Amino acid sequence: MSNFVLGLDFGTNSCRALLVDLSDGRELASSVFAYPSGEAGVIVDPADPNLARQNPADYLLGIEYTVRQVIGEARRTLADFSPDEVVGIGVDTTGSSPMPVDSYGMPLCFDERFKDNPAAMVWLWKDHTSFAEAARITGLAAKMRLRYLAKIGGTYSSEWFWSKILRLKDTAPEVYEATASVVEVCDWIPALLTGETMPGIIRRSVCAAGHKAMFSREWGGLPDEEFLEALSPGLGQLRAKLYDEAATSDCRAGYLAPAWANALGLSEKTAVAVGAFDAHMGAVGAGVSPGTLVKIIGTSTCDVMISPHDQQLQDIPGVCGIVDGSVINGYFGIEAGQSAVGDIFLWFVNNLVPESYGSTPDERFRQLELAATQLKPGESGLLALDWNNGNRTILVDVRLTGLLLGQTLHTRPHEIYRSLIEATAYGALVIIDRIEEYGVPIREIVNCGGLAVRSPLLMQIYADITGRPMKVSRSEQTPALGAAIFGAVAAGKEAGGYATVEDAQRTMTGTRTTYLPDQDAHAVYARLYALYHQLHDAFGTPRWSGGLYNAMKDLLTLRDEVRKAT
Amino acid sequence: MSNFVLGLDFGTNSCRALLVDLSDGRELASSVFAYPSGEAGVIVDPADPNLARQNPADYLLGIEYTVRQVIGEARRTLADFSPDEVVGIGVDTTGSSPMPVDSYGMPLCFDERFKDNPAAMVWLWKDHTSFAEAARITGLAAKMRLRYLAKIGGTYSSEWFWSKILRLKDTAPEVYEATASVVEVCDWIPALLTGETMPGIIRRSVCAAGHKAMFSREWGGLPDEEFLEALSPGLGQLRAKLYDEAATSDCRAGYLAPAWANALGLSEKTAVAVGAFDAHMGAVGAGVSPGTLVKIIGTSTCDVMISPHDQQLQDIPGVCGIVDGSVINGYFGIEAGQSAVGDIFLWFVNNLVPESYGSTPDERFRQLELAATQLKPGESGLLALDWNNGNRTILVDVRLTGLLLGQTLHTRPHEIYRSLIEATAYGALVIIDRIEEYGVPIREIVNCGGLAVRSPLLMQIYADITGRPMKVSRSEQTPALGAAIFGAVAAGKEAGGYATVEDAQRTMTGTRTTYLPDQDAHAVYARLYALYHQLHDAFGTPRWSGGLYNAMKDLLTLRDEVRKAT
Repeated sequence: MSNFVLGLDFGTNSCRALLVDLSDGRELASSVFAYPSGEAGVIVDPADPNLARQNPADYLLGIEYTVRQVIGEARRTLADFSPDEVVGIGVDTTGSSPMPVDSYGMPLCFDERFKDNPAAMVWLWKDHTSFAEAARITGLAAKMRLRYLAKIGGTYSSEWFWSKILRLKDTAPEVYEATASVVEVCDWIPALLTGETMPGIIRRSVCAAGHKAMFSREWGGLPDEEFLEALSPGLGQLRAKLYDEAATSDCRAGYLAPAWANALGLSEKTAVAVGAFDAHMGAVGAGVSPGTLVKIIGTSTCDVMISPHDQQLQDIPGVCGIVDGSVINGYFGIEAGQSAVGDIFLWFVNNLVPESYGSTPDERFRQLELAATQLKPGESGLLALDWNNGNRTILVDVRLTGLLLGQTLHTRPHEIYRSLIEATAYGALVIIDRIEEYGVPIREIVNCGGLAVRSPLLMQIYADITGRPMKVSRSEQTPALGAAIFGAVAAGKEAGGYATVEDAQRTMTGTRTTYLPDQDAHAVYARLYALYHQLHDAFGTPRWSGGLYNAMKDLLTLRDEVRKAT
Repeated sequence: MSNFVLGLDFGTNSCRALLVDLSDGRELASSVFAYPSGEAGVIVDPADPNLARQNPADYLLGIEYTVRQVIGEARRTLADFSPDEVVGIGVDTTGSSPMPVDSYGMPLCFDERFKDNPAAMVWLWKDHTSFAEAARITGLAAKMRLRYLAKIGGTYSSEWFWSKILRLKDTAPEVYEATASVVEVCDWIPALLTGETMPGIIRRSVCAAGHKAMFSREWGGLPDEEFLEALSPGLGQLRAKLYDEAATSDCRAGYLAPAWANALGLSEKTAVAVGAFDAHMGAVGAGVSPGTLVKIIGTSTCDVMISPHDQQLQDIPGVCGIVDGSVINGYFGIEAGQSAVGDIFLWFVNNLVPESYGSTPDERFRQLELAATQLKPGESGLLALDWNNGNRTILVDVRLTGLLLGQTLHTRPHEIYRSLIEATAYGALVIIDRIEEYGVPIREIVNCGGLAVRSPLLMQIYADITGRPMKVSRSEQTPALGAAIFGAVAAGKEAGGYATVEDAQRTMTGTRTTYLPDQDAHAVYARLYALYHQLHDAFGTPRWSGGLYNAMKDLLTLRDEVRKAT
């Protein structure tokens, strides 16, 4: 008799359920639900391009739809399948995506008073409205609590928990007033599934807490009240409404609540794991282990490594976070990332590629890929920066923008497309260099996510630019697979699951393809990378003279002034 | 009884004939002929994007087609029109566009041996193959003959006469060997029409000679033999095959040769003026006079002023040329320009604008213009450099390329379109600033050329960015009108023409519209212009530290290496 686990993956535009066979990691059924709210699931504001929110009602619809779909499919296609055999559920989500909740743990946007108020919704990871608040937090921590910054690369980001709370407090006091707690989506969904949504008992993920909320056992949990009060008078009171403990995802959040078991057609004995972020669970699904860098390449990119406790680990400037247990219990999790990768290509194809390349975006992607594959490194004369959505690692600066250099009157769209892919590869190499520079050896790179599977050109360029082999994970859905692995561990060995994450990884993960670097291409790219680095430093770092550090920021400041005045 | 003049205008992609009424400047008939050779009249080389040549046979076809068309139209539409009343013809062409000819003055590409050899064709103004040769000329002049550089802005350009000859000699010795002389197209066409093509008797234009060939009466004509020998052994011998005299365009080159009179249906008494470049004649057609800057805005842009002999005139660094009589006899002609303006918009619309903006390029232009007009200055957060075809003024450097900065994941095509227009306006302002900085006051700006007439958005942005009113010339075809004016002066007063260019301008030229600057927009643009200037200097000038002067050049060097190796 086989046992099964479910991985639930909540992305930016859709969510997915994946049913996995515990014995070999086979992915038996999968279902995707596109969020109905906003623009492809994201609530935006034409007057403020920094704003990105989400409607949590979409998650409820998504769980019911996708789980019923995969269970239905399993019933149809697997002999003797019984939903009772689904022993565990794991959950991964985007993050930091916090939302304010009431005293029952319900989203404040479910309250009639706040139903159209974006401040009462989920503040999606890519919401950049809080850039000024992030700078305040970094500034204050640098003065008062330098240790808070050490594990997060030295700069607190506008994408993170406290920046968003601070902005919520300052710009929507009526919503803040009604806030009983603030919960990350990755904590809220397991709480919902187990029926334990009261803020006081929600199990919080150490992944979210440690990487985004400056939580550490070293200083007794979240930032202390004095610090929060100094940040904003009154904010200190929120601390008691949050949490003092955080758990790794091999822990069980609880068992499926009867109402959900009934609605989804599953057993009440199904274990639900503590949630975590998609990248971290994706890394587990891709087989992360010490020395392996997992790159999850999607709309944005996350780079994840783990480092054993017994190995000396320095703080790494500009790398988003080092958190004990955030990926696998017993290891430090290291997280870095690029704010936009697939999103840049999508923007380009949707906006700047004529129909001569194809009448649908998919066809245009195919044609661009085909034409760009014919080009040699350096042939186009183009060089781009991959900062259309800011830079997460190693500059940690959302006030940066895209740049394209070298266009002539002969430049063609597929040349630009290739230069954009190359830009993201240079950005990836900056991260690799920084991690190794600080003593963490990278012996293997495993890529996962849609682009790793769908774009051989992208993978070859990554191999050529980094000069390293690029392996591609066996699964196309590593976050959901990683979530399923945690579901299996949360169920435990006695219930047919696994005792440890490593045990589960051994049978449930693997790679499929390896792209080897071409040395001639690498030699040309080394010259281009030097130029990329020159632009990177000129526009991205304050220098003692002659730099252009102000240029992108001044343009954004002016843009925001003009838009606000309109 | 009315008298008429013909202006023949030879552009990059087509030529035009314009029939003008001498008494009031009315444009009675016009005809355009698209050159049949190459890509829209330009011979290109996929392996070398710098190459741009032209087939002189296209000019012959063009003259016959367009003149017969306008004469035919005049016969149909004007009562009592007689071709005998066409008293003069003026000719303007692109330049510097030299070609090697045989001892009869015939193009070497008409010779069977060289018929497909691009070196034997017209080296079109925008041919940039000779960038290394240009640097050699500048370098040698700086050492041996500093005075040669003073009137051409300090840098000899790859677009000019000697750069092209030097490259012809070095890369196509068999063609060079057969070269009896080298003739600018603006000199060759009047020679052809008057039947005086023998190299020894061709009347050469002081406009071409002075602006492009380092010709000056100050040093006895063209650069001396010693200098040419130092440049390339053997080149000194060419000097004797060229010319010692050059004429202003109010001079008559001769009268229409019988064969041409017959072919075109005109009288043998028709005077033909000495030729000149399109921009210079365009300035005359737009009514240039002291204190008036004429901007001819087309695929590229020329800025032309004149300064009276009695006014002290310094050399202006980076301004392409100051030549006595190159625009109007009795004044110094001042020429500056931007290497690409309309060409940048055309490149963008043809390559990077999806059909959602319209199914034809014209529709897309209209929609872009409409959408871009809705934007406020600064609103897009974008900033571009207008260097897709290098920079003619004030950097005089073809090894520069385009740059776009500030794009996010929300950037739309019409935002980029507006930023490209703005980039060309900042480039225009750099030129204005430089000219005034060196003591030449600009009291009025008159714009002409297709874009000035067709794009109110462009004209308003130019007014807002420069903070000055932008007038638009009455004629849409100022180069051809200017050529016609010179035809009228070449014919002379006794033949029904005019005694001086100024006399002809008074009745034949004028303006139609004025765009006034908006002060709020100007204030925002002042901040953006400061950023433009920062990028301009960082990428365009060698600085003592921290600059990016190498970036565009290194990319081009690498590109050229890779393409040559392919």
